[in-house]
Amino acid sequence: MRLRNIKGAQNIISASEYLVLKPMDYRGKMRELFGNDNDIEIEIGMGKGDFLINKAIKNPHKNFIGIEKYASVLVKVVKKLSDIKLNNLKIMNFDANMIDQIFDKEVTKVYLNFSDPWPKKKHANRRLTSPIFLSKYTEIFKKDCIIEMKTDNQNLFSYSLVTLSQNGYIFSKVKLDLYANLDDENIATEYERKFNSLGLPIYQLLAIHKFDKKK
Amino acid sequence: MRLRNIKGAQNIISASEYLVLKPMDYRGKMRELFGNDNDIEIEIGMGKGDFLINKAIKNPHKNFIGIEKYASVLVKVVKKLSDIKLNNLKIMNFDANMIDQIFDKEVTKVYLNFSDPWPKKKHANRRLTSPIFLSKYTEIFKKDCIIEMKTDNQNLFSYSLVTLSQNGYIFSKVKLDLYANLDDENIATEYERKFNSLGLPIYQLLAIHKFDKKK
Repeated sequence: MRLRNIKGAQNIISASEYLVLKPMDYRGKMRELFGNDNDIEIEIGMGKGDFLINKAIKNPHKNFIGIEKYASVLVKVVKKLSDIKLNNLKIMNFDANMIDQIFDKEVTKVYLNFSDPWPKKKHANRRLTSPIFLSKYTEIFKKDCIIEMKTDNQNLFSYSLVTLSQNGYIFSKVKLDLYANLDDENIATEYERKFNSLGLPIYQLLAIHKFDKKK
Repeated sequence: MRLRNIKGAQNIISASEYLVLKPMDYRGKMRELFGNDNDIEIEIGMGKGDFLINKAIKNPHKNFIGIEKYASVLVKVVKKLSDIKLNNLKIMNFDANMIDQIFDKEVTKVYLNFSDPWPKKKHANRRLTSPIFLSKYTEIFKKDCIIEMKTDNQNLFSYSLVTLSQNGYIFSKVKLDLYANLDDENIATEYERKFNSLGLPIYQLLAIHKFDKKK
């Protein structure tokens, strides 16, 4: 359960050097945020941030941007980062719907971790792997579209296998029980640790849409 | 567990009007087995036959061919068919490796039900969704390649999602727990009833390789 409003959340996160206050100002030139040409990988819905903070620590030669809709959630990320100095991590506070208005052909990889499953059919377009979102992502990738996804939600996962497949993505990895065949490099999110501790399977996929196959 | 030899199995099945004794004689002209131009759907590894017999009963305007390597297993199919008169079903006794030498551009759909998972990596090429088999299937389809698969084996299923995706197939259906969202038209196999009764999930996919995307 995510708290949608914490009084002063906006003020707290705005004071952090990690927050990009006006992401749209960097549209098409996100590299300026980092001062280098390293790959830029983003997590849409970074939640409490464990995944992306660890990614950034372990991969100093890549840049990471975490996106989160709720300022109240980002407060927790900002607190975690208060004692850490990372030059390759930024956070942004906006709704995923805006993604193609914020980025422009500059992202190398998208991470979707334990995204809201929006279980009702009438809300299917809000799922982060709906054809509408996949179409938005096409605009933000520098070259090949690469999406890595983890979820505990069976229906969201099977839905995503179909939508990704039908929108030009090819799977290079599909795991139906991540912890039965764990990669060394796996970085667990908060949700993931919780679900795994309950013995529930976690699904993972890596999907690539090659640039030369784009329309 | 399948018995590989029952004394006289070959004799028993050869006496059945359902068995095609020399399948290769009908290569490219399987329609002659049925005397019509209806679609021809095949099941590779028909086992005890429940699935395909029911398919044939429920779909009189399609033709079905069941393929099974073990004559001893086909004995059970032949016994089940001894009291049934179906003009749209044939059975063949050969190894799936031969599939592209038996059929030639005349199959409309392939069913793979609870195929041997060949769990060891060194046997991966024997899996019925290995790139080697997918390449053989390309030769047998009349037009679009359509594969419908069910399995209880998690590793075989994730392997198949990757190989099918990487060989031009697009998924129109993926179910990670068939009995949680059961189609009215589902026909259970013997294995399926057994695994479902144990509470184990059954996976299903429908994959299509459009003809115009073939090389």
